[in-house]
Amino acid sequence: MQPERLSVGELAAGQPLTVPVYRFIGTDASAPSVYIQANVHGAEVQGNAVILQLLRYWQAHPPKGNVTLVPLANPLGINQKSGEFTLGRFDPISGENWNRQYLDNQLPLAQWVSEHYHLADAELVSAYRQVLQTNLQRRLQSPWGVTTGQRLAYTLQLMASEADIVLDLHTGPKSCQHLYCPAYQQQAAKEFSIPFTLFIPNLFGGAMDEAIFCPWWRLTDYLASQQRKLAVPVAAFTLELGNQELSDMAQAHQDAQNILAFLHCRGVVAEAIAPLEMKRYGCYLHNYRKFHAPRAGLVQYLAAPGALVKAGEPLVRLLRLDLAIDEQEQLLTAPEDGAAILHFASAAVQQGTELYKIMTQLFEVD
Amino acid sequence: MQPERLSVGELAAGQPLTVPVYRFIGTDASAPSVYIQANVHGAEVQGNAVILQLLRYWQAHPPKGNVTLVPLANPLGINQKSGEFTLGRFDPISGENWNRQYLDNQLPLAQWVSEHYHLADAELVSAYRQVLQTNLQRRLQSPWGVTTGQRLAYTLQLMASEADIVLDLHTGPKSCQHLYCPAYQQQAAKEFSIPFTLFIPNLFGGAMDEAIFCPWWRLTDYLASQQRKLAVPVAAFTLELGNQELSDMAQAHQDAQNILAFLHCRGVVAEAIAPLEMKRYGCYLHNYRKFHAPRAGLVQYLAAPGALVKAGEPLVRLLRLDLAIDEQEQLLTAPEDGAAILHFASAAVQQGTELYKIMTQLFEVD
Amino acid sequence: MQPERLSVGELAAGQPLTVPVYRFIGTDASAPSVYIQANVHGAEVQGNAVILQLLRYWQAHPPKGNVTLVPLANPLGINQKSGEFTLGRFDPISGENWNRQYLDNQLPLAQWVSEHYHLADAELVSAYRQVLQTNLQRRLQSPWGVTTGQRLAYTLQLMASEADIVLDLHTGPKSCQHLYCPAYQQQAAKEFSIPFTLFIPNLFGGAMDEAIFCPWWRLTDYLASQQRKLAVPVAAFTLELGNQELSDMAQAHQDAQNILAFLHCRGVVAEAIAPLEMKRYGCYLHNYRKFHAPRAGLVQYLAAPGALVKAGEPLVRLLRLDLAIDEQEQLLTAPEDGAAILHFASAAVQQGTELYKIMTQLFEVD
Amino acid sequence: MQPERLSVGELAAGQPLTVPVYRFIGTDASAPSVYIQANVHGAEVQGNAVILQLLRYWQAHPPKGNVTLVPLANPLGINQKSGEFTLGRFDPISGENWNRQYLDNQLPLAQWVSEHYHLADAELVSAYRQVLQTNLQRRLQSPWGVTTGQRLAYTLQLMASEADIVLDLHTGPKSCQHLYCPAYQQQAAKEFSIPFTLFIPNLFGGAMDEAIFCPWWRLTDYLASQQRKLAVPVAAFTLELGNQELSDMAQAHQDAQNILAFLHCRGVVAEAIAPLEMKRYGCYLHNYRKFHAPRAGLVQYLAAPGALVKAGEPLVRLLRLDLAIDEQEQLLTAPEDGAAILHFASAAVQQGTELYKIMTQLFEVD
Repeated sequence: MQPERLSVGELAAGQPLTVPVYRFIGTDASAPSVYIQANVHGAEVQGNAVILQLLRYWQAHPPKGNVTLVPLANPLGINQKSGEFTLGRFDPISGENWNRQYLDNQLPLAQWVSEHYHLADAELVSAYRQVLQTNLQRRLQSPWGVTTGQRLAYTLQLMASEADIVLDLHTGPKSCQHLYCPAYQQQAAKEFSIPFTLFIPNLFGGAMDEAIFCPWWRLTDYLASQQRKLAVPVAAFTLELGNQELSDMAQAHQDAQNILAFLHCRGVVAEAIAPLEMKRYGCYLHNYRKFHAPRAGLVQYLAAPGALVKAGEPLVRLLRLDLAIDEQEQLLTAPEDGAAILHFASAAVQQGTELYKIMTQLFEVD
Repeated sequence: MQPERLSVGELAAGQPLTVPVYRFIGTDASAPSVYIQANVHGAEVQGNAVILQLLRYWQAHPPKGNVTLVPLANPLGINQKSGEFTLGRFDPISGENWNRQYLDNQLPLAQWVSEHYHLADAELVSAYRQVLQTNLQRRLQSPWGVTTGQRLAYTLQLMASEADIVLDLHTGPKSCQHLYCPAYQQQAAKEFSIPFTLFIPNLFGGAMDEAIFCPWWRLTDYLASQQRKLAVPVAAFTLELGNQELSDMAQAHQDAQNILAFLHCRGVVAEAIAPLEMKRYGCYLHNYRKFHAPRAGLVQYLAAPGALVKAGEPLVRLLRLDLAIDEQEQLLTAPEDGAAILHFASAAVQQGTELYKIMTQLFEVD
Repeated sequence: MQPERLSVGELAAGQPLTVPVYRFIGTDASAPSVYIQANVHGAEVQGNAVILQLLRYWQAHPPKGNVTLVPLANPLGINQKSGEFTLGRFDPISGENWNRQYLDNQLPLAQWVSEHYHLADAELVSAYRQVLQTNLQRRLQSPWGVTTGQRLAYTLQLMASEADIVLDLHTGPKSCQHLYCPAYQQQAAKEFSIPFTLFIPNLFGGAMDEAIFCPWWRLTDYLASQQRKLAVPVAAFTLELGNQELSDMAQAHQDAQNILAFLHCRGVVAEAIAPLEMKRYGCYLHNYRKFHAPRAGLVQYLAAPGALVKAGEPLVRLLRLDLAIDEQEQLLTAPEDGAAILHFASAAVQQGTELYKIMTQLFEVD
Repeated sequence: MQPERLSVGELAAGQPLTVPVYRFIGTDASAPSVYIQANVHGAEVQGNAVILQLLRYWQAHPPKGNVTLVPLANPLGINQKSGEFTLGRFDPISGENWNRQYLDNQLPLAQWVSEHYHLADAELVSAYRQVLQTNLQRRLQSPWGVTTGQRLAYTLQLMASEADIVLDLHTGPKSCQHLYCPAYQQQAAKEFSIPFTLFIPNLFGGAMDEAIFCPWWRLTDYLASQQRKLAVPVAAFTLELGNQELSDMAQAHQDAQNILAFLHCRGVVAEAIAPLEMKRYGCYLHNYRKFHAPRAGLVQYLAAPGALVKAGEPLVRLLRLDLAIDEQEQLLTAPEDGAAILHFASAAVQQGTELYKIMTQLFEVD
């Protein structure tokens, strides 16, 4: 099985930038279709290993629904080195985060719905999908052009917008596994085998998951205001798979099993693979807090990713070798109870560096 | 005259980051106060030379209003080199644009106005200014901390919020002089000696000028809805002084004269310095278009900054040495009539690079 | 005419890195062969435009000798952006200068010469060239591999080593035109139409020109010690064409004419194109001095590239807005008489930044 | 105890760059003096924590010899971020490695020795030390200035040149502990508690350790040629303490104990602290091999730092998601037997990236 190559840009010296695309045709036309991409942030490589495992699985066990797999989704970001690390979170020219450049695919809903209200649900969904895609294509063909990041993002979004289920595989810097889940898809938190779930509102902030579900959530919402009930027909999630700059095939095998279990719940995978038994915590996005370095210094991270911390417990040992000996070691403590989800990658920080992201006001998901 | 040193952060190795602040006490307590900063983007140094010229002028000719001058306003950005150039537009860790991190100083206006409606205008303005500053201080003291960029931005914003007139001195990459002017301050376009003015709406996008005037415009707007008329008591502008990575004392002298002329119009400067006679063009922000490279290649910029261009006229000669000889030279043309305000700094571009910014739908300002 | 594509590497996401190669077969088998490359430093693009002009010329007027033209010779460097500029002087991972990674092609000369002494000159040259190439190929195939930069450099060096004349087209940051010329090729300084020539010793420092001529100069030298006279059969030059980040087709046309004139002198070009009449200055490499910033600050460059300066004359106006007003403006002066060949690209410098390169102890070349 | 602050440069916005210096006066004037620095490469922070532990120890147990401790020795490098990591190996402007810019302190030995041959050994050493320092000071005061990196390096070198024993604390990217030891100091390998020692020749390559011992080794060597025997009176070592971007106080305590044990062997520390019992391996520098990626791809490092590997055993699992499914997973194997000392920090690599450094031709040290 060979990938297709999708063109997403051109380097300054003329080399085409392409992305590999693998497609499986589902065995059951009524099953949902799936789109999975990885590595939109250049240093977040583990999703590629997961896709490799999924490729092997589906070659042996064809999926019921159509599946599109897009590893190495951001060749510019992956290839951007600065020192020994991959500088892949943002466009090195503009600073734009590669995962904040998707199109906010807004339509004049009142007019569109009034024109299409007569359609049956399936046709309405199909027509709406069509207009979303046309809008993306129109933007890509603007006489003023689009930015490098928009070309990449819109091109991926166009492919992803064909699917019913979209998974965007990311990682944190030093991170435990966690899930971004739209609030309207709350049950999904139990279908994934991920200990921490962030429930995000139905708002557009620029990321792929939001770019996929927001237009559909708006449609559902508007139809409700017109006394028509339509379940949001599309779901999109961002999976944070652990640490960046890490490729681990054994972990990838487990991650692939977990995704297959979710997709079994959704009718895409025939084999009965069950989500893991585990304690699951939830947090609303507005309770997801960033802890910034109140002082500069050298940092020893004391709370491991995934650890539950209490207010006042130490998060960080801060060293200041420029000060008098008795001021050289300081402890920074958690402002509130919560779970330390991820921490910064470097051990030397400026004042203000985001040291930890902490889920507060945790609740159990069950 | 020695500058004060304002603390704005700490480097990883412990060095304090400070910003020099020069203050003149005005000779006339009723004259408006002024705040001028420069070099928030690290490569945009020319504003410092302008401040140097203003310092010399005001030492010899004290201003009527209080004046605060803040050169070298972003020490992190100025000191961030990457190769031979200053990488100073965004935080190298996060990619955040240094001029998009000011606080959107939103208050619960209905409640606040109902509690302070009884105050006379001057007292109302004073009380409102106080609450804006308290809000900034509270954010700076959050137990979760603020980012490196927010600490810088909020600290500058706190100083700037004391003034009636705020000027933020920037430059473009390769650029002609142009002005960002809030729509409600339209007359200012003639008080500056700048050929091109962008009229921006009263919306917050993260920049200093908006951070200063938006809260006041909202107050005026809300008061109007309550049948009380209050002219927006504060004005803020971004001046784009030309090219980045350039320090030119003769040009700085002229730029300082132009600012003094504007401030004479506003009653801050006693000496009768007049704006230059010149043709002035205006453009609304939504007509300010970016022209992105439709293809990668090597670029010769054919339209000089400030040139008027017609649709179809060449903007760029694009070279592609990787192609057959007869395809190696291509011309890219303007999609619409307009003025070429600025172009990219490099001669080798990816597909999607922002080659030009062009004001379209130009009108004369008079 | 289509370029061949030479493979020089692979990006992390798997994309092949290739370099375009254009070849002309000469009309006269006895004429010298020529290799010209451009853009080994990523920001130094003007050589590509010169190659474009040469391609057009030789399509119309075929050369006598074989010609190989390699524009865009460093795709990694050209594509490496950091902010708005091309960060193309060194490998972003290791810091290695792209033009210091060629192989010092050293042979055990005593043994080799003793084994081949019996050969006639032409055969000796051919055998030596062969062994140099074999050595390069062997390095490229090491079981331990070679670095990214070595793969590029050795691959280019292998191609260049087939030619009798090698030109490496570079630019400075902000620079006048100047030439690096090996001391044994002194007459070449008058065959190029370049006002300033650096005469470099026959030593290997890692650059392409040295990598090409050093092995031959060593052979000549060793043969002389064995009482056999062989003129160095190969010549290599680095041409500094002016400013980086600039692509100018009119200037490129003139530069191409100047190269054609040189190649006419060398019997490669049939048409009688003469070097320009101009004053030419020479300088020995050990008199080429770097002037480093004695203090940090903002910089206005006062000596234009190409200007003759006297000791004590101002080179730079340095602004220090962090100091008291009467210390804010300082002048930095030339330590010796000389010609200001190039200056730094940025207007904000640390202490120690290389502000100017100055040829001292100038002499006229004639 | 407060550090002194040594000035080593100025940032573009005028901030002084300083380095903290802690000094202990020894209790025994005849004991050797010691200089220890850390963090010359910006991401290699662990040496600072070791110095913190040494400071605490020596406050409680004063050393016999004078001790100078210089943590945070490269403020520019430490503060240079690019993305989430510290880009601290090389000057971001020039690409120069911060640890390759020390002065090759060469004297005209024949003349100097002939003039000072009459001195007794102690006076000869003292006079030679003086002339080395004078030479450094003269370079720092050149009218042409020195580079930013030279100013830092020469200033540190000047301080270090006062000591009899110099330790430069570094780390690798992902690395086991190893030691750079000059061949003439072979016994030191057993005085340190470090499992792997590289024996380096008495040649200058630009690093601190070489910059310290080379001039002395040359003196000893020259004196020997003049029939005078002088043991090399100075020793310098580079300690590689493990991973970069890591600060760990427990490990730092152990590392400090190990350094104290070495210094006890050398008569600097009174307390009887013994080196650890451990198996120690040695390798000559010319057998220290770099294994470069023969292909690009995503990398799982299979040999842990410190592991012994056999030729043909897998070092790396390489993933290529752009290829057909059955080519996506490849194994790269060791070309020879050896010890995998360190590997690259990132999981996505270009062709040619240095994946591993491997000591071959290992021998036991005892």
